[in-house]
Amino acid sequence: MRRFGEVDVAALVRSAREGSPRAVARLITLVENEHPALPEVMATLAPHTGEAWIIGLTGSPGVGKSTTSTMLVRAFRAAGRRVGVLAVDPSSPFSGGALLGDRIRMVDHALDSGVYMRSMASRGHLGGLAWAAPQALRVLDGAGCAVIIVETVGVGQSEIEIAGLADTTVVLLAPGMGDGVQAAKAGILEVGDLFVVNKADRDGADSTVRELRHMISLGDRTEPGTWRPPVVKTMADRGEGGQEVMAALHKHREHAESSGELRRRRVRRAEREVEAIALAQLRLRMRGVPDGSSLPEVAERVASGEIDPYAAARQVLDG
Amino acid sequence: MRRFGEVDVAALVRSAREGSPRAVARLITLVENEHPALPEVMATLAPHTGEAWIIGLTGSPGVGKSTTSTMLVRAFRAAGRRVGVLAVDPSSPFSGGALLGDRIRMVDHALDSGVYMRSMASRGHLGGLAWAAPQALRVLDGAGCAVIIVETVGVGQSEIEIAGLADTTVVLLAPGMGDGVQAAKAGILEVGDLFVVNKADRDGADSTVRELRHMISLGDRTEPGTWRPPVVKTMADRGEGGQEVMAALHKHREHAESSGELRRRRVRRAEREVEAIALAQLRLRMRGVPDGSSLPEVAERVASGEIDPYAAARQVLDG
Repeated sequence: MRRFGEVDVAALVRSAREGSPRAVARLITLVENEHPALPEVMATLAPHTGEAWIIGLTGSPGVGKSTTSTMLVRAFRAAGRRVGVLAVDPSSPFSGGALLGDRIRMVDHALDSGVYMRSMASRGHLGGLAWAAPQALRVLDGAGCAVIIVETVGVGQSEIEIAGLADTTVVLLAPGMGDGVQAAKAGILEVGDLFVVNKADRDGADSTVRELRHMISLGDRTEPGTWRPPVVKTMADRGEGGQEVMAALHKHREHAESSGELRRRRVRRAEREVEAIALAQLRLRMRGVPDGSSLPEVAERVASGEIDPYAAARQVLDG
Repeated sequence: MRRFGEVDVAALVRSAREGSPRAVARLITLVENEHPALPEVMATLAPHTGEAWIIGLTGSPGVGKSTTSTMLVRAFRAAGRRVGVLAVDPSSPFSGGALLGDRIRMVDHALDSGVYMRSMASRGHLGGLAWAAPQALRVLDGAGCAVIIVETVGVGQSEIEIAGLADTTVVLLAPGMGDGVQAAKAGILEVGDLFVVNKADRDGADSTVRELRHMISLGDRTEPGTWRPPVVKTMADRGEGGQEVMAALHKHREHAESSGELRRRRVRRAEREVEAIALAQLRLRMRGVPDGSSLPEVAERVASGEIDPYAAARQVLDG
């Protein structure tokens, strides 16, 4: 058993798998801090991963992601499954909103050790969220969460990317906030496996649903055997529509499993994860080239015309 | 002498150094196409590089970058120096505007073999403009351009980064288009070594100049020996103010040389260049891992929990 500083990786992973929220929190903090023990953490977790159902939940601020997520957590908990919630905020390093939201929502599940919630900001990570988010998911997966909901705040490119890497991606809209055309522009029509129009008691809910269905029908998903994303109306703050969403989620899951799409997505997700780690490792190496020279020293020689940048890059890559 | 496909690198570099615009064009096209001969091209050029004075020219669309650049080209040509102009457009893959601009400007210098002009778009480059722009500069430098003007279209983050890596960076503004506060917000106050307020006959020119001077005086550049960016007024379409700009450029160049700043910038530029090439090489490697396995295969094993993503990344990095 190796130790890195104060971290006893084997004991920490054991506690996390036994359901200790403190241990899970500690492991995700290691990810956030880019701790040198991470390779060992991930190696220790690896045999226990690959079981979680990762559900992406994306939508503009104000559409009701927290309430929808809470509704889903209740439904999965009622079915006896351990649930993790990871709220990622690529835009802000310290999102007061997300933290406050967490505290409020914690009350709801505070005494339920079957739920683990966590906010994560991108901060100055080496490889950004593409690097950090999959590793945080890996912690929750390895710790025994059967379902993990990844909430992404906002609808930018990186949010869509993260949500799009889930096993099942839920796109949340609200009437009058983001209509179908805006959704199409933002590129979320392509990543959604299930569209939820929340706040369905508001004016325009039905026209938003119609518009979405129309845009989906125009898409490339009309071949037989292709998944056709359903559109479901909810009022998440009252729990209404929860059963319909759950039914649609399970239907997508079955389809993804039988069609091989689930496997393909998981391999693609692992590809991105490995790529992000490899690029981050390379950046680290460049700060201190293995043979003792450093990038600034190699750069000096390039600037003076002594060597060319490709030779320098080879030296950086291969030592 | 090695050959890659149809490219005789040694002959091409020789022609470019003898002043053949065709050979220079061909070499920059190799950069744009990420041609496998690039490492040899750069190795062949390396001994001839490091002489060019790279002048960055940045500003919002419509401030008069083309006319200012033409004015500077004339002045440097009058002094008998070979000049290269590289217009980079990070935003659009095919910028009709930039290409049209080139054609118009070509007329002016068409018969002058001492001027080489080229537009470059980022397209789908492996490493984007951070990868392509320095290598195009390296071609112009190695081909014997004593001065290279890098125009960046727009004022986004990547434009500022590219302009900020020049030996001397000129920030162009026009009255009523971008005032000092907007400049500060966009982050261009920090990268400018020289501010040019073009279209100086327009209303508000003097207040733009005052505002810029005030904002510069508030900056961190008041210690003795620090370069204090001058603000110059021009009407580039009539050639007015050209002498003042040239005087300020030479003054900055002398200051940068004697203070060691020129050397520092060139090393920093080489660092970015080497880093971009190394990251692009790694991405290429990941598409076909050296030992015969590929990223998708490694990812399959990660997805199934057989290996962890760090072990996979090590395999990708080190074969």
